[in-house]
Amino acid sequence: MKEKKFVEVCFTPHDYDYFKGRFEIVVVIDVLRATSAICSAFHNGVNSIIPVSTIEEAQEYKDKGFLVGAERGGEIVEGFDFGNSPYSYMNSELKGQDVVLSTTNGTRAINIAKGADKVVIGSLVNLQALIDWLIKEDKNVICLCSGWKDKFNLEDTICGGAICEALLSTGNFTSDDDASVAAKYLYLSSKDNYFGFLKSSSHRRRLKRLNLNEDIKYCLTPNQMDVIPILEGDRIVKG
Amino acid sequence: MKEKKFVEVCFTPHDYDYFKGRFEIVVVIDVLRATSAICSAFHNGVNSIIPVSTIEEAQEYKDKGFLVGAERGGEIVEGFDFGNSPYSYMNSELKGQDVVLSTTNGTRAINIAKGADKVVIGSLVNLQALIDWLIKEDKNVICLCSGWKDKFNLEDTICGGAICEALLSTGNFTSDDDASVAAKYLYLSSKDNYFGFLKSSSHRRRLKRLNLNEDIKYCLTPNQMDVIPILEGDRIVKG
Repeated sequence: MKEKKFVEVCFTPHDYDYFKGRFEIVVVIDVLRATSAICSAFHNGVNSIIPVSTIEEAQEYKDKGFLVGAERGGEIVEGFDFGNSPYSYMNSELKGQDVVLSTTNGTRAINIAKGADKVVIGSLVNLQALIDWLIKEDKNVICLCSGWKDKFNLEDTICGGAICEALLSTGNFTSDDDASVAAKYLYLSSKDNYFGFLKSSSHRRRLKRLNLNEDIKYCLTPNQMDVIPILEGDRIVKG
Repeated sequence: MKEKKFVEVCFTPHDYDYFKGRFEIVVVIDVLRATSAICSAFHNGVNSIIPVSTIEEAQEYKDKGFLVGAERGGEIVEGFDFGNSPYSYMNSELKGQDVVLSTTNGTRAINIAKGADKVVIGSLVNLQALIDWLIKEDKNVICLCSGWKDKFNLEDTICGGAICEALLSTGNFTSDDDASVAAKYLYLSSKDNYFGFLKSSSHRRRLKRLNLNEDIKYCLTPNQMDVIPILEGDRIVKG
């Protein structure tokens, strides 16, 4: 009998140390909003995205003439071209461009995942395409939730749980970790109404205060595009 | 209008740094099996329990003639009187005694919680009594899950979720954190059949391999006793 592959969910970048090195594919998830924005950017024709962890690195790229998105605490950092709203990445001026991005949680998680065989970008907006791709790849998968400043968050966990549930249901994958079981149950509790389920999410409340309800609705609408953004060296490209 | 108190769930001792100092009452939870064993010990007449973090400290007490329980990885540490099976603490020889206990996760969490105004011991076996007590106390409450070696576990989270749900339903408490929302949903998904829900829990599988199914059934049977063990200085006593 063919050996099953593992699919697990890691709640925060801090927890990733425990999982590091045991999974060929890392799916980085930051539903609100970095990985939703990255998927949208590729869907809208961006050539590549360079994720950087610090504002200083972002500024260096800006000084070189790059278009640079920078977000901290949900808001655009002063002096940069945009933040991490997916709507910013639908601008036709970005087509064919190489864009730099630094966000509170998502780009940090992407950089932590470097070193894995494959790092891909996951979100609800590309969920089904990503699931189909992971099933075809047939490798051990860890869903790395970006969380909020190293704390657990609901929306990333639910997205990881959706991936777990789909891969487990093929019979070719298994899970061993309590976090994965929890993520799967949270997904099953929420799947008929992400928006309602997440009304009590701390990050949704945070973004609501910033008048970002349209962004939230967009990011919580699954399966809007087929892109699989993938990390190649220091750049994310369309897989 | 009276200000609401907070009730939150902290998934692991590692995460506790974030919550530390903001809650008057810490409920330490290690369902499988340290806090279930501690509750059972007091229910059966033990005078006090001294929680120690290391085997070296446990050995010092043993050398002084104390009865000492020591568990690592689910098994009794060689040379000690018992581990953390609740059944060990029902022995009539323990009545009136001061007992020392060191376990993989639970006693470590208890020691981390020291410094809070009140540290109490929670488990499913004393769940309703604890909830009633917390409602009367009317203070900010953090449920500190012991986890498994600083990783999330399901059974402690569900117990924390049960406490959250009960306190929130009084209308006198509120939650602000995604971990608390998740714990509450996991409790609601599991409450009609803890044993079935936890069949995929990694720790239950670990204990099953050690032939501890009777312990598991006991620890997952709620509301067997009314004791509220509470930390006073370095000792746990009956509250």
